[in-house]
Amino acid sequence: MTTQVGVPDVVVSRLPLYLRTLKQLQRAGVQLVSSKQLGEILDLTPAQIRKDLNWFGEFGQQGKGYDVSYLITQLERILHVDRVWDMIVVGAGALGLALLHYPEFEVNGFRIVALYDNDPAKIGRDLGGLTVRDVRHMPEDVRQHGWRIGVIAVPEHAAQDVANLMVEAGIQALLCYAPIILALPPHVQVQYIDPIVHLQHMTYYLTDPATSHNAASKTS
Amino acid sequence: MTTQVGVPDVVVSRLPLYLRTLKQLQRAGVQLVSSKQLGEILDLTPAQIRKDLNWFGEFGQQGKGYDVSYLITQLERILHVDRVWDMIVVGAGALGLALLHYPEFEVNGFRIVALYDNDPAKIGRDLGGLTVRDVRHMPEDVRQHGWRIGVIAVPEHAAQDVANLMVEAGIQALLCYAPIILALPPHVQVQYIDPIVHLQHMTYYLTDPATSHNAASKTS
Repeated sequence: MTTQVGVPDVVVSRLPLYLRTLKQLQRAGVQLVSSKQLGEILDLTPAQIRKDLNWFGEFGQQGKGYDVSYLITQLERILHVDRVWDMIVVGAGALGLALLHYPEFEVNGFRIVALYDNDPAKIGRDLGGLTVRDVRHMPEDVRQHGWRIGVIAVPEHAAQDVANLMVEAGIQALLCYAPIILALPPHVQVQYIDPIVHLQHMTYYLTDPATSHNAASKTS
Repeated sequence: MTTQVGVPDVVVSRLPLYLRTLKQLQRAGVQLVSSKQLGEILDLTPAQIRKDLNWFGEFGQQGKGYDVSYLITQLERILHVDRVWDMIVVGAGALGLALLHYPEFEVNGFRIVALYDNDPAKIGRDLGGLTVRDVRHMPEDVRQHGWRIGVIAVPEHAAQDVANLMVEAGIQALLCYAPIILALPPHVQVQYIDPIVHLQHMTYYLTDPATSHNAASKTS
């Protein structure tokens, strides 16, 4: 994972959560918010939130809180989403289709500009306004347009090969939906989306009354 | 977030990643793995991995490493996925459809048993082997079957209402795909899946040569 001088990655990882929460508050008509209120929503301490934001400047006024609109603008600038990023998606299955129809990308700084697959039955079909292209054209397209963000929506067995092709072509940030840890050069960002990981995190806390398996007994 | 005695939630959050990685190694034919190898794949220190696993017992042999199959079995037991959990999905749009077609649920301990929507055009339709049911029947179904895990695949404006209905009916763990922080009683687990958060985490590190916005200058 590439890191910028000074700011810990764990701080960076929380900034999008602050932005999401602030946008949620803005839609609810909230104009000012305290670090205490933000902390309650996000299950973080007010001190943690102030410390995180202080890496980037002085955004709040003592005793008054943060101006929601102003802080949104600043976080969008810090996260480089005060612009629209083009993204490509490889994999035109059910997941690729769901991504094409996801309305949040456009309003949060991201636009899917190309969709690829290797299945002849899918290539050439129009899905959600984009024509599915042969994945063999992907490297050339990426180089030509200078695209930097790629989404991997293929099955696990194909994910590493697709990632390699993307990275060779110049993709610098990968959002991977395949349940695999990719081997990547250090300059490439990667983030994984895996519902299984989140579900298993929760089932740890779900004890089953029908069995003797409960988490408390496991820690002994 | 409910917590078990002793084990920090941040430790629990890493266990599914270990399990995913071990399964990936198992499919590649690996039988023994050291904490050093696991650490390299997961970008964690070997000491961290050993410390995490030591909360639950002695799974490795000094100098020999972990038996991959054995550690998989143990982690499945610890995470309570040595069984199959029934899940319901509310929202039969493109996302709900993608979830129904996601092959990883079944092989990792989860099975979608019911799909709900409030759209008359969708109710009664057969999607991926399940008939879409009217969301008004959801609370009764949940109570009758004792289902405990719910997936929220509705737009943001409907997510809190759906969550409330699920929790009232007895759902104890929510996987939320809507870009919102839910207000929930403390006994309910929740995990969010939001690609925007992951993308914005990465764009922080993507400096744009066409503008003067670069992360390094922001930290000064």
